[in-house]
Amino acid sequence: MSLLAVGTVALDHIETPFASQRNVLGGSATFLALAARFFTDDVRLVAAVGDDFPDAYTAMLRDAGVRLNGLEVQPGGKTFSWTGRYHYDFNSRDTLDTQLNVLETFQPVVPEAFRDARIVCLGNLEPSIQADVLGQMSAPAYTILDTMNFWIEQTPDALAQTLRLVDCLIVNDAEARQLADDPSLIRAASKIRTMGPKTLIIKKGEHGALLFSDDTVFAAPAFPLEDLHDPTGAGDAFMGGFAGYLARCRAVTPHTLRRAVVCGSVVASFSVEAFGPARLLSLTQAELNARTRAYEQLAFIPAEED
Amino acid sequence: MSLLAVGTVALDHIETPFASQRNVLGGSATFLALAARFFTDDVRLVAAVGDDFPDAYTAMLRDAGVRLNGLEVQPGGKTFSWTGRYHYDFNSRDTLDTQLNVLETFQPVVPEAFRDARIVCLGNLEPSIQADVLGQMSAPAYTILDTMNFWIEQTPDALAQTLRLVDCLIVNDAEARQLADDPSLIRAASKIRTMGPKTLIIKKGEHGALLFSDDTVFAAPAFPLEDLHDPTGAGDAFMGGFAGYLARCRAVTPHTLRRAVVCGSVVASFSVEAFGPARLLSLTQAELNARTRAYEQLAFIPAEED
Repeated sequence: MSLLAVGTVALDHIETPFASQRNVLGGSATFLALAARFFTDDVRLVAAVGDDFPDAYTAMLRDAGVRLNGLEVQPGGKTFSWTGRYHYDFNSRDTLDTQLNVLETFQPVVPEAFRDARIVCLGNLEPSIQADVLGQMSAPAYTILDTMNFWIEQTPDALAQTLRLVDCLIVNDAEARQLADDPSLIRAASKIRTMGPKTLIIKKGEHGALLFSDDTVFAAPAFPLEDLHDPTGAGDAFMGGFAGYLARCRAVTPHTLRRAVVCGSVVASFSVEAFGPARLLSLTQAELNARTRAYEQLAFIPAEED
Repeated sequence: MSLLAVGTVALDHIETPFASQRNVLGGSATFLALAARFFTDDVRLVAAVGDDFPDAYTAMLRDAGVRLNGLEVQPGGKTFSWTGRYHYDFNSRDTLDTQLNVLETFQPVVPEAFRDARIVCLGNLEPSIQADVLGQMSAPAYTILDTMNFWIEQTPDALAQTLRLVDCLIVNDAEARQLADDPSLIRAASKIRTMGPKTLIIKKGEHGALLFSDDTVFAAPAFPLEDLHDPTGAGDAFMGGFAGYLARCRAVTPHTLRRAVVCGSVVASFSVEAFGPARLLSLTQAELNARTRAYEQLAFIPAEED
């Protein structure tokens, strides 16, 4: 089934305690799409860049199998740019600079051919823009929203309206607490699930993720990694793996939601192994399958012996 | 099979943002024993208290089925006392006061009748004391060690010697990093497993635990709780559940180690529901079994659908 990923495509300048790189291909839609393509071959990207966006990056995305009809190039505009520095433990980072550039006036237009996408991923953008994109879709089977502290704080009403429209919200633990105004993750999850989304995923970085759907909770571990190179985009890669798997399923069920979280976790575990999307670009299906088996072993609880 | 728990029995003064209580029954051996007794009925406690230790608390332990031949009462001595205050998020706490009292001169003597215990839990104590207790045991099938940052910093040589003697080490993530002098938990685990213990458990509080044994890793989730009342002793309760389950098994295998971690996690999830050991004292086998089933559901990954 088809998947639409609307979000940002960016040029990132990333610094870690061990290395730094400038003009790294980035953006939520980039990671989303590059992750989702392992699960479905109809990945439809909607984003905007400036004419400073390198042809080589456009080619990378196209060669990776992402459909780019919805990638708008604004003449005279500059691509969204983020500059960040990760701390030693990689769990926290400072945003040193954000240049919205073309994002300042981005009004996504979903190409006609993209409008019947079945799985719709609304990557992190201003909530009313996310709602507008949703309004352009003809028959989504499942809609997934990402947001961030900035919108929770700055545009609560728009976010509340957009939340009512979607099936699933994916946020991290700090955002979940902030959105629900509750320090307890479990209570926060209950509150958020009255705001619209029946399904909630709370990402906990190196501590895995929690899936709240129906009346059950799934605690998905994080794949243990010896070396972390760059966590940029891992959350978006998670969303892409999650949504991509659902795009492949006949139906969204408690069963397939859990498998989808597994897929998201596995893909995200690869994305952090190199700068920007490099590892997602080099990743093979065989590697993905092998780590999925390893992930199942990681979480496996044997039955009680007699 | 029998289990020996050597550690502290204390009078704690606990403060949370919501409540406070003084002279709460505490100590690593207390929580260890009260947890282990759900899995084996031969729980042998070795610790020391002063003559200020309330008879009512001694009765509580005895009525709970813990064997107290090894509970030494030092005449004229005062019981070990800890005063702590938890922060709003319960993940961190301040130790406001520690009165070692009888612990200052505690030289555990394992009663003759206790010396053939099969599972030996060396609760957090000075490492050479832990080694001394181990030396008094006649035929342990499995030995488990707990330690803390204080010993890692202050008595590294004694700790190194004691580590070489045990089968399993249980520490939290900060302690694992400190012990291995490595920020990567995975690398830290590899290093620690060359120091003696073939099996390592890294506790991550609200984020569950990691079990490293043989060439596999098990990521055990933490049971999601709406309300946390007092985390004091949860780590010791974990150890008690883990060790208690092993005491019940015919052999320690990769399979039974995973089940043991599940048992430790489930018991620990109860212990935090009330002040001190109150919940462990009121807990029933039926409640434990029900939550164990729920815990298995929490971690369950269904097979891929066709």
